[in-house]
This record gives sequence, C-alpha cells and structure tokens, in this order.
Amino acid sequence: MVIAIVNGPNLNLLGDREKNIYGDMTFEDYLDLLKARYKQIEFKYKQSNVEGELVSLLQECDKDSDGIILNAAAYTHTSVAIADTIAAISTPVIEVHISNIVSREGFRHTSLIAPNCSGTIFGFGIEGYALAVEAFATKIL
Amino acid sequence: MVIAIVNGPNLNLLGDREKNIYGDMTFEDYLDLLKARYKQIEFKYKQSNVEGELVSLLQECDKDSDGIILNAAAYTHTSVAIADTIAAISTPVIEVHISNIVSREGFRHTSLIAPNCSGTIFGFGIEGYALAVEAFATKIL
Amino acid sequence: MVIAIVNGPNLNLLGDREKNIYGDMTFEDYLDLLKARYKQIEFKYKQSNVEGELVSLLQECDKDSDGIILNAAAYTHTSVAIADTIAAISTPVIEVHISNIVSREGFRHTSLIAPNCSGTIFGFGIEGYALAVEAFATKIL
Amino acid sequence: MVIAIVNGPNLNLLGDREKNIYGDMTFEDYLDLLKARYKQIEFKYKQSNVEGELVSLLQECDKDSDGIILNAAAYTHTSVAIADTIAAISTPVIEVHISNIVSREGFRHTSLIAPNCSGTIFGFGIEGYALAVEAFATKIL
Amino acid sequence: MVIAIVNGPNLNLLGDREKNIYGDMTFEDYLDLLKARYKQIEFKYKQSNVEGELVSLLQECDKDSDGIILNAAAYTHTSVAIADTIAAISTPVIEVHISNIVSREGFRHTSLIAPNCSGTIFGFGIEGYALAVEAFATKIL
Amino acid sequence: MVIAIVNGPNLNLLGDREKNIYGDMTFEDYLDLLKARYKQIEFKYKQSNVEGELVSLLQECDKDSDGIILNAAAYTHTSVAIADTIAAISTPVIEVHISNIVSREGFRHTSLIAPNCSGTIFGFGIEGYALAVEAFATKIL
Amino acid sequence: MVIAIVNGPNLNLLGDREKNIYGDMTFEDYLDLLKARYKQIEFKYKQSNVEGELVSLLQECDKDSDGIILNAAAYTHTSVAIADTIAAISTPVIEVHISNIVSREGFRHTSLIAPNCSGTIFGFGIEGYALAVEAFATKIL
Amino acid sequence: MVIAIVNGPNLNLLGDREKNIYGDMTFEDYLDLLKARYKQIEFKYKQSNVEGELVSLLQECDKDSDGIILNAAAYTHTSVAIADTIAAISTPVIEVHISNIVSREGFRHTSLIAPNCSGTIFGFGIEGYALAVEAFATKIL
Amino acid sequence: MVIAIVNGPNLNLLGDREKNIYGDMTFEDYLDLLKARYKQIEFKYKQSNVEGELVSLLQECDKDSDGIILNAAAYTHTSVAIADTIAAISTPVIEVHISNIVSREGFRHTSLIAPNCSGTIFGFGIEGYALAVEAFATKIL
Amino acid sequence: MVIAIVNGPNLNLLGDREKNIYGDMTFEDYLDLLKARYKQIEFKYKQSNVEGELVSLLQECDKDSDGIILNAAAYTHTSVAIADTIAAISTPVIEVHISNIVSREGFRHTSLIAPNCSGTIFGFGIEGYALAVEAFATKIL
Amino acid sequence: MVIAIVNGPNLNLLGDREKNIYGDMTFEDYLDLLKARYKQIEFKYKQSNVEGELVSLLQECDKDSDGIILNAAAYTHTSVAIADTIAAISTPVIEVHISNIVSREGFRHTSLIAPNCSGTIFGFGIEGYALAVEAFATKIL
Amino acid sequence: MVIAIVNGPNLNLLGDREKNIYGDMTFEDYLDLLKARYKQIEFKYKQSNVEGELVSLLQECDKDSDGIILNAAAYTHTSVAIADTIAAISTPVIEVHISNIVSREGFRHTSLIAPNCSGTIFGFGIEGYALAVEAFATKIL
Repeated sequence: MVIAIVNGPNLNLLGDREKNIYGDMTFEDYLDLLKARYKQIEFKYKQSNVEGELVSLLQECDKDSDGIILNAAAYTHTSVAIADTIAAISTPVIEVHISNIVSREGFRHTSLIAPNCSGTIFGFGIEGYALAVEAFATKIL
Repeated sequence: MVIAIVNGPNLNLLGDREKNIYGDMTFEDYLDLLKARYKQIEFKYKQSNVEGELVSLLQECDKDSDGIILNAAAYTHTSVAIADTIAAISTPVIEVHISNIVSREGFRHTSLIAPNCSGTIFGFGIEGYALAVEAFATKIL
Repeated sequence: MVIAIVNGPNLNLLGDREKNIYGDMTFEDYLDLLKARYKQIEFKYKQSNVEGELVSLLQECDKDSDGIILNAAAYTHTSVAIADTIAAISTPVIEVHISNIVSREGFRHTSLIAPNCSGTIFGFGIEGYALAVEAFATKIL
Repeated sequence: MVIAIVNGPNLNLLGDREKNIYGDMTFEDYLDLLKARYKQIEFKYKQSNVEGELVSLLQECDKDSDGIILNAAAYTHTSVAIADTIAAISTPVIEVHISNIVSREGFRHTSLIAPNCSGTIFGFGIEGYALAVEAFATKIL
Repeated sequence: MVIAIVNGPNLNLLGDREKNIYGDMTFEDYLDLLKARYKQIEFKYKQSNVEGELVSLLQECDKDSDGIILNAAAYTHTSVAIADTIAAISTPVIEVHISNIVSREGFRHTSLIAPNCSGTIFGFGIEGYALAVEAFATKIL
Repeated sequence: MVIAIVNGPNLNLLGDREKNIYGDMTFEDYLDLLKARYKQIEFKYKQSNVEGELVSLLQECDKDSDGIILNAAAYTHTSVAIADTIAAISTPVIEVHISNIVSREGFRHTSLIAPNCSGTIFGFGIEGYALAVEAFATKIL
Repeated sequence: MVIAIVNGPNLNLLGDREKNIYGDMTFEDYLDLLKARYKQIEFKYKQSNVEGELVSLLQECDKDSDGIILNAAAYTHTSVAIADTIAAISTPVIEVHISNIVSREGFRHTSLIAPNCSGTIFGFGIEGYALAVEAFATKIL
Repeated sequence: MVIAIVNGPNLNLLGDREKNIYGDMTFEDYLDLLKARYKQIEFKYKQSNVEGELVSLLQECDKDSDGIILNAAAYTHTSVAIADTIAAISTPVIEVHISNIVSREGFRHTSLIAPNCSGTIFGFGIEGYALAVEAFATKIL
Repeated sequence: MVIAIVNGPNLNLLGDREKNIYGDMTFEDYLDLLKARYKQIEFKYKQSNVEGELVSLLQECDKDSDGIILNAAAYTHTSVAIADTIAAISTPVIEVHISNIVSREGFRHTSLIAPNCSGTIFGFGIEGYALAVEAFATKIL
Repeated sequence: MVIAIVNGPNLNLLGDREKNIYGDMTFEDYLDLLKARYKQIEFKYKQSNVEGELVSLLQECDKDSDGIILNAAAYTHTSVAIADTIAAISTPVIEVHISNIVSREGFRHTSLIAPNCSGTIFGFGIEGYALAVEAFATKIL
Repeated sequence: MVIAIVNGPNLNLLGDREKNIYGDMTFEDYLDLLKARYKQIEFKYKQSNVEGELVSLLQECDKDSDGIILNAAAYTHTSVAIADTIAAISTPVIEVHISNIVSREGFRHTSLIAPNCSGTIFGFGIEGYALAVEAFATKIL
Repeated sequence: MVIAIVNGPNLNLLGDREKNIYGDMTFEDYLDLLKARYKQIEFKYKQSNVEGELVSLLQECDKDSDGIILNAAAYTHTSVAIADTIAAISTPVIEVHISNIVSREGFRHTSLIAPNCSGTIFGFGIEGYALAVEAFATKIL
C-alpha cells in the first residue's frame, strides 16, 4: 500500500518556528515516526507553497498511490482549483488539519475542499496524520 | 480506560431504516464490534432524541469517563446548549459524523459544537467512531 | 385508516388562552368534531412541548399510522432534528399551521420541515387540520 | 357559489409537456373533474402568461366570485403587483402550488403573495386545487 | 407644454376601494382638478397593469410629451425594464408615489427606477402629482 | 405661516465650492429668492454641521414654525437621533435633497429619517426647496 | 408575593465548575441569600436542561406566580418555543443573564426571548437576579 | 433549418436611440445582414416589451423552430417565468447579450435564465447574434 | 457615593411630549424622586443632544463620580465614539433604556455601547434608572 | 493572424478522465481539429495549473498574439490577479467555459475575470473554443 | 508650509490613560517633538470630540493650510459627514491611525473617510503622524 | 540595515504599460532612486506573479533582512497563504499599495494580509515605498 502525504503552504516551517504551537519536530522527523509505526506502508511526501503545484502533485499521486492525505493549509479556504482536482481524480483523499480550524478566525471555518474529500480529520495536532493513515491501513477507506 | 459514546436524535434508527445509506447494522451491533476490537476499553453508550437530555448525559459522562465520543446529529447545527456543556466539562470530546456533512445541505455545513471539541472526524461512515476510539486508545488525546 | 395528529409546543394552551385569536375550543374538543365528521378514520393525538419527544413520537407514529398531520409550532423554524425524522420515516406527513405564518415575524417565514413534508397547509385557522384529514381521506396522498 | 381559478405563466402547458411530472391531463380536463365533483359550485377559469393580466383578472374576479384560487406560478416569487392586488380586493384568495416549492430551488422558497392570501396549500399535486375548493365549499373560508 | 401622467398596476382602483386610504376620488376626477389648475398645460393620461405596456407607453410619451410623471406602483420595486426605458428616452421623468414608501414594508424601500429619474416625490398623498406638475410648469426641470 | 429651513453639514459651503455642481449661489442668496416669491411666508433659516445641534434646532422649530424643511445632508444616512426627533415633534417635516441621492454611492441610498418625514423630495437641484415650500403654501401638508 | 426563578441548561453546574467565572456558590446557596434578604417573598426555583421542559415550567408558573425571573441560558439565542410561551402567558417575565452576553461570541448577541419579556438585565453577575427581584418587590413591574 | 430570434424590452429602440452605444442600425437592418450571410437558414423574428408575451412567444417558437436565440434584456435579471418556459420547452435556447453585462451595474450580473439555456454569449456587440447563429448552423448545438 | 446620570438626545423632551408613552413627569422631577429615595447618594445629572458632548461628559464624570448611569438614546445604536470612551475610562457604566429596545425597530436591536458597559437594564420604564442606582447602592457593581 | 489559447488548472486532464463529461479527446487532439478548420490562423497553446504562471503567460501572449482565448477554469472564480492582467494588457481576451457554469455550484456563478474580457462564451461544450476563434476570424473582435 | 493636524474623539486622553497602549506622552508633548524635527514647517493642532466640529475644523483648515493630517478616531467608521467634507475641500488630507485598525474589532475595518483621502497610514503607533508629515515635507503629496 | 522589497503580480509591468497611471518609470529605475537616497541601506528586490513563490520569498527574506516592504497586489485581497506567512515569520512587514485601494472596486477594499502586517501605507503613488523605507530607517518599526 502506497500512501502519499501532500502538505501545503508554510508547512515547510514546521519544527523551525512557532514551536510553542507545533513543537520542535519537523515534518520530516514526524514522517520517520509514521514509517516506523506502519512498516507495511510505503510513504511518499510532497510539500509546496504553490497552489497550482499542489494541483499537479495531486494529479501525479493519483497515478501511483492508493490513498492521499492532504493538508492544504491556507489553500483549504480559497482554492477551487485543488477542490476540482480532488473531484477529478479517483484516489481517495483524506483532509487533515493540525489545529481545530473552526475555533480560529472566521475565514478558516470554510473548507472548499472538504466536500470533495472522502473524510476529514482536524483538531488532533500532528497526530491527525496518523489517524488518516490508520483509516487507510484498516481499510476504512 | 472508560469511553462514553453519546448519540443524538434519529441515530436510534440505524440499521432499521435507510439501509442503503447506513447498512443493516444497528449501533448496538456495531458497538459489539468495537468492544471486541478494544478489549482493554470499557464502553458506555447513550442515545437520546432530546437536546437537553444530551446536555445532562454529557454532564454525567464528565464524571465517570476518560473520553467522550459525540455524534450530536441534527443538534450539531442548532444547539448552543450542547456546545456550552462541552465547554463547561473537562473530559475531552471528539465529534464524529457518519456522513460528509459539508457535502450535504448548506445548513449542515456549520457545526456549533466543533469549536469546543478536542477534535472532529467526519465522512468515514460508521467507522469514524473507531477512528475516534483509536485517538483515545493511542493517547493522541 | 389511522391518522396521527402531532402537535408541538404551546398548542396545549389552545382554548385556554389568547381566545381572541384561537377561540375557546381546546384541541381535544376540536378532535371530537373531527372524529364525528370522519367516522371511518381512527385518530391518534399526541402533544409535546419537547423537540426530542416530537422526534420520538414521529418515529412511533411511523409504525402504526397511515398518515401523520404535524403542527410543529415554534420548532417548525428551528428544528433540523424533526426535519431529519420526517425524511427518515416512510409514512407521509402533512404540515399544518393555524395562522398564516408568512404574514407574521420574519423568523416564522422559514419552515425547516416543509421541504421534507408531502404537503403544507397554513392560514385556514384550526380547520386546516380538517383539510389535511380530507387529503388523506380522499387518497390525495 | 362562484369560484374563480386563476392560473399563471406556463400552466397552459399542463398535460402537454413534462408529463412525467404533471401527468397527461390538461387543466381543462382536470377542471371537468372538479365540476363533476362539486356540482353545486359554478367555476370560472382564467389563465395568462402576463403578470399584469393576472392583476386585471383578479380585479375582475373580485366583482363576480365568492372565492379565488390562485396559482401564480413563477410570478409567486417576483410579483409585488399581484400581491398588492390581493391586498386591495376583498374576495378571499387561496394560494395553490402543485409541487412542494420549498424543496426546489432557493428562489422558489419565497412567496411574495402568500402574506396577503387567506390560506396556502402546496405539495399535493394537481389535487391541491381540490383541497382549496373544499375549503370554500365547507365554509372554512 | 404637454405633460404625460403614467400610472402603474392597481392605480385604476383609486376612488373605488380602500377609500379610507385614498379617498373617494378616482384618478380621472383628480385629473380634472389638475387640468383646471393648470389650464396652460395639455395633459395625457395612461394607466396599465402590465409592466411591458408601461415600457411601451413611456417610449410613446417620449415622442409627444415635454415631461412625464410616473407612478410605477408595484413595478417600482421590481422592474429593471422600466428603469431601462427611462434611461433610454430623453424626456425628463419625475417619479411620484402617493404614500411614504419607505415607512412601509421593506421591499418597498428600494426603487429600481429612481436612479434614472430626474426627480422623486413621495409621501404627499395624491397631491404629489401636483408638485410634479409644478416642477415642470415652473421650469425647475 | 412660518416655515423653518434647516440645513445639515457642509451645506454652508454652497456657492463657495463645487460650483460646477451647485452653482455660484449661496444658500443665503437662494433664500432671498424664496422670500421674494413667497411674500406671505415668514422664513427661518438654520444651518449646523453638528448632528446634535440639528436635533436641538428641530426641537426649537417645533415650537415656532408651521412647517419644517430639512436637508440633513450626510446625517440623512447615519442619524437615528434626528429621525427620533422628527418622530417626537408634531410639526410636519419635509425632507429635501439637492441631488438624486439614489443614483450616487450605495451608502446614500438609505435615508434613516425619511420614514418619519411627511414627504420627501430629491433630485430637483436647489429648487427642491421651492417645491417643499409650495407643498406647505398650498396646504398639501 | 410569589416569584418563580427558572434557570436553563448548564446552570445546574453553578458553583461546581468554572469557579473562576461563577464563584463557588451553587444557585441553591444563592437562593438562600435571596430568601434571607426578601423574607416577604415566596420563592419557587426550577431548573431544566430541556427546552420543552422550560416551556412547560413557564406554563405552570403562570398559574401560581406573580412574577417570573428567567435565565434561559443557551436557549436564549435559539428558542422560538420559549419566546412563544412568554408571549402566551400573562405573568410578567424578567430576563436575566449573569454575564454581559453582548461582549461574548456573536451568536450570543441576539436574544430571541427578550422582545417578549417585560424587562432585561445582564452583566451584573449572579446579583442580576437580585435586581430582578427588586423590580418585582418595588412594584416597578 | 428554422431559427427564431426573440428580443425583449427596449430592443425595439435599437438604431433609433443611444446610437453612440448601439450604432444607427435597427435590428431589422441587422436581420437582413444575417439573412444574407446565412441563406440556408429561415429566420423568424419576434420582439416584445411584455414579459408574459415573451413566455408565449417562446412556447410558440418551440413548435416551429429548430433553435431559439433569446435576448431577454432587462427580464434576464428578474424573470423566473421566462426561465421556467425555457426549462419546459425542448428546443435549444442560446442566450445573447449585446453588452458585457457583468461589467455593468451589479443587478445585471445575475441572469435568472442562463442556467436553463444551452449556451450563453455576451460582450460581442450586436454580432453576438451571429455567433449564436453560427453555433446552430455548425451543429454545435 | 457620587452617581452621574447622563442622558442622550431627545431625552430632554421627557414629560413634555409623547406623554402616553413616557408619562407627564420630566426627568428633573424623576430625579427629585431618586434623590428622596437615596439620600446617602449625591447625584449629578447631564443631558446633551450632541454625541461628542456626551463623550466629553463621560470623560468628566470619570473624574468625579463613583458610578455612571448612561442612557445614550439614539446614539446607542450608532456611536463608536461613546463606546470607545466607556472603554477608555475606569468608572463603571450601567446602560439603561426606558423601553424594550429589542421589541422595536430592527436598528434599535444593536447596542454598540453595551459590550463596554458593566451592565445593561432595559424595558422597565423610567424606573430602570432606579434599578441601576440600586446596583451601585448595594455594591453589586 | 495569431491566436493564443490559454487553459487553466486541470484542463490538462481533458480526454483522460471524466470522459463521460468531456469525451475522450485530449485538448491537443481538439487543437488539431481547430488548426485544420482555420488554416489561415496560427495557433499557440499554453496550459498551466499555476495561477501566477497564467498571469505570466497572458503577459507574454500580449506581445505576440492578435487575440487570446482564455479558459481560466477554477481560477475564474477566485483570481483577482488574472483579472488584473487582462485589464493591463491590450490584446482582446475572450473567456470560454466548456460547461454551463451558472447551472453548477453557486461559487461557479461569479467570474472575476469576465468584467475585463471582451466577450464571454459558455455552455457550448468544447466547441465553445471554435466560436471564440470564429469571433476573431470574422473580425467581430 | 503649514500643516494642520486634526484629532478626533478621545484622542485628548492620550498620555493620561491607557498608558500601556499609548505611552505616557500627551499629544501636546509629541507635537513638540514634531516641531523640533520639522523646524521649517508651521504646525496647527486641533482636537474635538464632536463630529460636526471636526467638519467645521476641516473647512477652516482648508483655508489656511497646505496639508491636513486627520485621525478621525471613532468617527472614521461612522461619519459620512466628515467624508463629505474631505471631498468638498481642496487641501490634501492624509488619514492616520495609531493602531492597526484592521486587526481589531470588525466595525473598525471599514473607514468611510479613506476613499476621499489622498493617502492612508496606520499601524505605526504615534509615529504614523511623522510619516504623514514626511509625505508633505518631501512633496510626495 | 537590509530591507527587502517584495512585489506581487503584474507589478513587473510598471513603466511599460498604463503609463498614464503609473508613469514611465520601471520599478528597477525607482529602486535606483531609493538606493541613491538611502545609501546606508542595502536593498533586496524580488517580484513574482505566483502566490506560492511570494510565500517562499517572504520565508527567505525572513532569514536575511531587517525589514520587508510588501506590495502583494492582487493577492492582497485573496491570499490567506501570504497572510499566514507574515504571521509565521518574525521580520516586520510593511504593506504598501500604490493606489488608494479603498476608492476602487469593492473587492479591493479588503486586505487579508493587513491584519498581520506591522503597518500599512497606501494612496501615495510609488513614493509609498519611500515612506515605508523611512519608517524602517528612522526606527519607527
């Protein structure tokens, strides 16, 4: 089973800044933990700050992955393009957010991409990714 | 570890009606599956069609549970009372919905209770409860 | 043919208060009139001030009635739960209101339950119930 | 007793098109059924696609009818002029719609004329007209 | 000087109904008063309940009048077509309303045609027409 | 007959600035024209840039005038206080605006004071005041 | 004089939780203080988490009380049913809130029940109840 | 192939007024150009200022045309009736506007009829009709 | 203890006009009653129709009062300036309204100043001031 | 004559996915058809998933094309940047959409770029591009 | 060069209160600093809590200043009158705010006066005035 | 001191197009002027049409600059991603716009990034950048 994790803008700063919120672990370090826990799964990891590159990455993952975990970050709230891509591809996509987005600013309460995702998980911190992996691993999706 | 599952209005009809959507398993049957999977966990299960009874049930669960999984169903979108209860109690609450609520009618896109919950999971069908249990079992929350 | 009439909050005050609006007939008295007119029909009558009890009552009526006449009163404008119940059950439901709800305050102009009902009748005073019975009796529904 | 039935735009197509929705009965045929059922009542029937002609027709019916049944069709949602006419005349007007207008597109949820009508009936198919006739015949209005 | 007065829907009922509001004078009677007061002016008078006929009437008045006084009644609030006609013709148009439209229902607070009129007068009862005539007679417009 | 004319903020600049719009006549000069035309009327003239002073001026005019002509200028769109004063006093108030306020910026389309005025006149340039005087002089109000 | 105090959802938690906000006094303790201060008044006290039970409680209090003090808590912002009850009964109702509800989340700024209450008091902490009692005791209401 | 061109209110003024915008060609002259270009096509041309007559014209064209080109002008933005007609008939309808309607006033940005049309063309001046003819002629529709 | 009462626009008309609503007592007379009841308290009384003078008055009262009772009247709904002043000063301010502002016009439902006040009292008629005095006198604030 | 066709996000998937909607022709194949039909025209074709690259592509096309055909896909509804580019360049741009965007989800009803385009064509399927080419080829634009 | 600085409501409290936000420098002290830095410039300073006095002050400054720096404070968000004054006068006006107004409450996000100002500067603390002076001093405006 | 200037989409066209608005100076030429004026400052200059590249550029500037001047152009109104980046980095950012954005189209009135910037300057033409430099140079920020 191949799972692609696709992260959006500013998530490359994880572990380097705002450590009080996100801790001092980079996503690369966290990915190592996931790989250790789920040895039977092959992980691919992509990050981009560019909306259109996320569109292209999702199109590519559609060809070589069994499931996609997407944290579109800020584009969650503004990108019709990414939402369209998720509708166009056939690989199931799980939306993950680290924080509880609906308890933050009003513009973060609406996810344009959630309606096209298979499932959504938010508010569990960085371990929300693990719950998404669990969903794929246990064939829930 | 004691986990309380609290279900809201019309969820008592699971397995009996709209089987094409929800399958022919009652929630009681599904609960048996959960208990078999998570033998180390003691489950409590409550269901009510009455908003205020859900308020009271959550207050009670706060006293004897380590975690609460809440599917408030229709009250998700209208109940300030339940949201206030979640804010008032100290036991962590995970919000679960069986369907992808943001791909349905507009009035289902807003959850009044999500801002006060520790985490939210929706769109995974009935197995969304299992992901919530997993979150408690693996100490994510 | 069994017809269930389900009345919502404050309708238990009919005939006792605001007689200038509603007359001095209680609903029980009016029900006797209906029974006298429609001798071939068995009537059941339920009233509750509690939203969730109305949910439960509708679920019960679904099992033993051929048609349901529902005046959800104030919950008409706020209850997603009752709307969900009407969608979940298979017995046809006719929505009745005594007054012309769209000529009153703005918050009464929207009925959350009407989209799920088979038909809606309002503005005919208490005899709106009779029109609903007529619809069932003449097999319009 | 004289009852005028006034139909608005596109209702002249009944029975000719969209038969899957409206059946293959023209309104003229249905009117014959009504006349057969209610022999004691004299029916007048008017149809126009023109908003202002409906205004004029209602003004005329006010002079020679005891009750008016109005299906304003599309003008229901846009015509202040027809609403004003109903307020200006003294003959009671019952609003009828064949379909459940509040379960269709959002712009059909608002009836500008309903606040000025004596009563409203919708969702009962073409037999909604019969319920309106019944209301006049039994002196409910 | 030729002044055309164009009245919209339901204004043909003036003097016949709602006398407590509008008095028992028909517009024809009032027009005689105006003619008596302003002997030097030739008056034309048109009334229609049909929006599109008002469009045509305004187009015609543009050819043979020096000024137009328009009370579009209900179409004031809904007719882009009449507004477009006023913009297209070159004869100045004064908008008149008998009542104070902004102290009535909310949908009467917006006039779609006012932005294209030379001036607007409302709230002076039927004598608002006289003020409009005065404006033309004294060359204010 | 005593008529008070009350002008609001920036109208003291008439004739001095923006002459292309308002001409080079000060309001004082225009007032002389009005006095010459209506010799039988005693005019009072007040201007203030301060909302609360306009409130006080209207209260004073209520004691010694038969009619008030008010151009509240910018406060038209923001002042509940002036609207309350007009409702509280018994002398009739006619609202006048020099320009066509509804063909300008959106925030000028709403007049908070118009609902409480006896009549409203706008779009006739500075001669709108004359029409208001005419209304009082001819006992329309 | 009999005064009924009716408290809504989660107010049974007073004194037990969120002591930093509400202090460590239960409402029962506070009620004892009120009774000590107002010996001439008979107090009745009711609390329920269920919206419809509050409807029923208010209907009952209407029969045996001279005044009702209502803190509907979360239902303040969502309950048309309770608002309807207050309109239907004849005993005066004073609305009380412990906190300053308009300085909290936006959904707390609107009280559906306030328009039907005789008076409203909020922001005075738990002693807001005492002010309401004072209003009844001194015959202000 | 028979193509019907149906024009709405004020389009009868083309070539006669506002020549700076629309040129000095009447629609009749333009129609001659179209006929000369598309000799194999039989053209029918209808114009009305009346909304309901446009409804009737479209119903008639449905019987004897292979394609309809509709410029509903002002009714584009207000007519549910015309939109309903387009949905009811089976002949394909292409919506044409001479100007770029979305770069004009806000109320022109919404077309109520576009959702029911086969295609929409605007902003190309009067030659937009030619593009619509081309679409029919080349069997795109 | 020094209490300042600050009244806003049009409250100088109390007792003189609209006696059916407010009675025939001037505020000065009512103030005498308050002084007689609360002999231990020194009262200061200020009234202004000018928003900015109310700002200045509140700033002054902040220096020499122990509590301020403010009825900002119409400015309640429009004045950010007064709201800012209340936030800037340290003396507690109680907001009072004579009528039930939320059962009147929609624009009176929002108080811009309430979020910054210590407490709010409305709907008790002129005796609402007495309840505010009571709050200060009994050290509730 | 040089015509540039610029396609936005996900249009690179044409012919490969969602064949039931878009057919099994890639845009490259369709372009060959266009070239065969319009031999006198030189076509340039660009596609990008990246909003900012579309901005750059349009800037480049402005230098070497006589006309631009733009299908901005999802960015149609969200990109002020592309709209600004169209306003900044001088080459005429025709907006094309394959589907009828106003009969789909609400967020697709608004085109931010249409106000700045010379003309707009949608709902004609992939042949909408041909109509745009025809407009340039026949010098309509 | 003469520069007028005009400050709005509550800015007279600078240095005296809320020192944690604004420091302990009065605006008079800060003005001395500005004068020391810009010896070649003559400064005038005005402050008023009254909206209409600010209107008058701006009218006066228009006569004897080369540039105006305006901090309208709370009136920024509510005053059409001040906005009209800025449009009416010819001296350039720079809007300054001490804090970042768009990161505060929602009602502070809209400046009614900014559209009429030459430039706007906010978020730089009290030194925002210095930047505005610099703009005038270096002839940027 | 190192200052980074980051420009968004279409600003690469400065000096080349729309010269009537922006003059015939490219930003590179203007940058030379700034360098000549502020010899003690090292300037870095970046421009991109791609939203995500601006995110990356800001992340890079955070490492090697003392202050950032950002003109995000069109992304100002749509980019949550850039706003998030400004919040995430620690280098102060000053927002600059050449034109007065709030006097242009409505969608330009909202800046998503302004709440996270240290200060905002707009309406001063290209010299707004100089004011921003001045703010850094004089240690205002």
